Amino acid sequence: MEFSCDRKTLANSIGIVQKAVSYKTTMPILKGIYLELKDDRLKLIATDLELGIEHEIEVDTRKEGNTVVDARLFSEIIRKLPDAEIDLTLKSDNQLNIKCQNSEFNIICHDPNEFPALPVVEEDYIYKIPQDLLKNMINQVIFATSQDVTRPVLTGALLEIENDILNMVALDGYRLALSRGKVESVLDNKVIIPAKTLSEISRIINEDDENMDIILTKRHALFKINNTKLITRLLEGEFINYKQIIPSEYKTKIRVRTRDLLNSIERASLVAREGKNNLVKLKILDGKIYISSNSELGEVKEEVFIELMGNELEIAFNSKYIVDALKVIEDEEIYIEFTSNLSPGIIKSTTSDNYTHLILPVRLS
Amino acid sequence: MEFSCDRKTLANSIGIVQKAVSYKTTMPILKGIYLELKDDRLKLIATDLELGIEHEIEVDTRKEGNTVVDARLFSEIIRKLPDAEIDLTLKSDNQLNIKCQNSEFNIICHDPNEFPALPVVEEDYIYKIPQDLLKNMINQVIFATSQDVTRPVLTGALLEIENDILNMVALDGYRLALSRGKVESVLDNKVIIPAKTLSEISRIINEDDENMDIILTKRHALFKINNTKLITRLLEGEFINYKQIIPSEYKTKIRVRTRDLLNSIERASLVAREGKNNLVKLKILDGKIYISSNSELGEVKEEVFIELMGNELEIAFNSKYIVDALKVIEDEEIYIEFTSNLSPGIIKSTTSDNYTHLILPVRLS
Repeated sequence: MEFSCDRKTLANSIGIVQKAVSYKTTMPILKGIYLELKDDRLKLIATDLELGIEHEIEVDTRKEGNTVVDARLFSEIIRKLPDAEIDLTLKSDNQLNIKCQNSEFNIICHDPNEFPALPVVEEDYIYKIPQDLLKNMINQVIFATSQDVTRPVLTGALLEIENDILNMVALDGYRLALSRGKVESVLDNKVIIPAKTLSEISRIINEDDENMDIILTKRHALFKINNTKLITRLLEGEFINYKQIIPSEYKTKIRVRTRDLLNSIERASLVAREGKNNLVKLKILDGKIYISSNSELGEVKEEVFIELMGNELEIAFNSKYIVDALKVIEDEEIYIEFTSNLSPGIIKSTTSDNYTHLILPVRLS
Repeated sequence: MEFSCDRKTLANSIGIVQKAVSYKTTMPILKGIYLELKDDRLKLIATDLELGIEHEIEVDTRKEGNTVVDARLFSEIIRKLPDAEIDLTLKSDNQLNIKCQNSEFNIICHDPNEFPALPVVEEDYIYKIPQDLLKNMINQVIFATSQDVTRPVLTGALLEIENDILNMVALDGYRLALSRGKVESVLDNKVIIPAKTLSEISRIINEDDENMDIILTKRHALFKINNTKLITRLLEGEFINYKQIIPSEYKTKIRVRTRDLLNSIERASLVAREGKNNLVKLKILDGKIYISSNSELGEVKEEVFIELMGNELEIAFNSKYIVDALKVIEDEEIYIEFTSNLSPGIIKSTTSDNYTHLILPVRLS
């Protein structure tokens, strides 16, 4: 293996695949990045056996080949070299020689045959979705995935394709986040993607509306974004029937400025935080919502102007769940619907049906 | 106590004193900020009994008084309130009422009589020094203070005033950093200031050349910067006679571009890091210095152009100590002087005598 390439291009490519490297592993080979040089293209691959990331760049090939380099060391070397052309040569003693201006490294490599191959994903059917839309949808739901590994399906998000609509859903037993977007599709589908994969996709994809590809098989999902492929294992199991959970009727509905409500609840939670449940109380009256909270540190009262439709209501929430949801909403104004102080609050857009956030209340003693 | 003030001004003031708050203390009162309102001025004080910071702002006073508020809660409340006028009132039940637009807090206060008074520092003699100079001098030496609490004097830096020169010195047994600057003085002096105090001063002072005041007593130092006073306990004990340590002669002297040497040593240390001593070897020849390092991960060779005066030399260092020193040097080029591979390397400016860094070598086996 022998090639030259530009430092910045290589550093960028390492940065993309590096997130799939498993640094805490009992399999040392997984701490590496697999390099494969063929036809003037260098392929970089990293995997933690759940998520695999592959990225390709064009390089100036002198001799094809493959090897595995320590991810951390290789990335730091390439990051610290001068911004110039780098020459890389795999030598017969299995060391990778890296030359750049007045610097020369020889780093010990691993056997590329030990590196686990990424699963082969048959590209029978390809869904197309704009990159910025998928990024935004992930952002809208990922915080609501569960950390509780005893219920694996909840540590991911459901991707449900019905006609040309993609519903992305996450829930953790206390709140549910649903995001909805248009996808090019004629084939319905339903898979559960691990949260870590979604957050890596969101990190890699661009903020533009260029389409990317999604391929779903029984056990895997493949996301193709420009020169990058992400292949992830799906979470096995049945996702909760989320549609049943979301009430379609309400007795109280408010219209409120998102930012005003967010700021007031964040302030109220400063005093509440010392307690365990971050409890904030909402008293919904005609024209105003009174938000209050107290602990041994003191008390706080906030007033936010609202438009009330339906009944007045007193209800309490864990402030964290409201704050998490309001933070990802870009609409200036939102609706919140309630049925009683024992049933969830439902946050909806005033301008579209792109998202729904459901938050369980805390029972007041 | 009753007053109004602008949110930003108060938030800024809290930010300044907050660094002296001791959050991990067995004395709950020290988790607070002392507020004293008198003559249209609000004084904020925090202390951890070693360092005290006092800051004053002008406010619109309606009733004088004093109290102590929980530092963390108060700071977060003021930070999160809208950018507007805030009304603060100490109520008879010892709660501080904070009103701002549609927000109202009542936070429980502590007894201000329990708050320890800052030491009184007699301002018999005042040294004057430009703020940016002191900031730069602190930056030049603070990293060389020791973390080893069994030798308390080394956890601070010596401030030695001789004629109108301030020498600031820190050393930890492996390296020494000396910074030199002009001070307005007719009174020689010698004190040891805790590293934490110096880093707080550096954080607070501006990057401009306006003078600040330093007052030194037997047990304390007072730094006055605009509306801020920092009062610190001095470290007791005798500082090492550092002048004796710095050799005045050399057998090898090089002139090198600071940035080139720094980059090469940083790269060399990538491979060395796995070992315990970060060992990098320097082979100093006429016109070039060869830097090398190796570990079970691989090896690295770097070449840096130099101008050599005197003998060729092979010597080894802990790369961290060289990197720390080179990072704070702004000169484009430096001198480094050596006597043998068992005696320290001395880094000096090529343009002034503002700093000296001394680094002990590692004996090669």
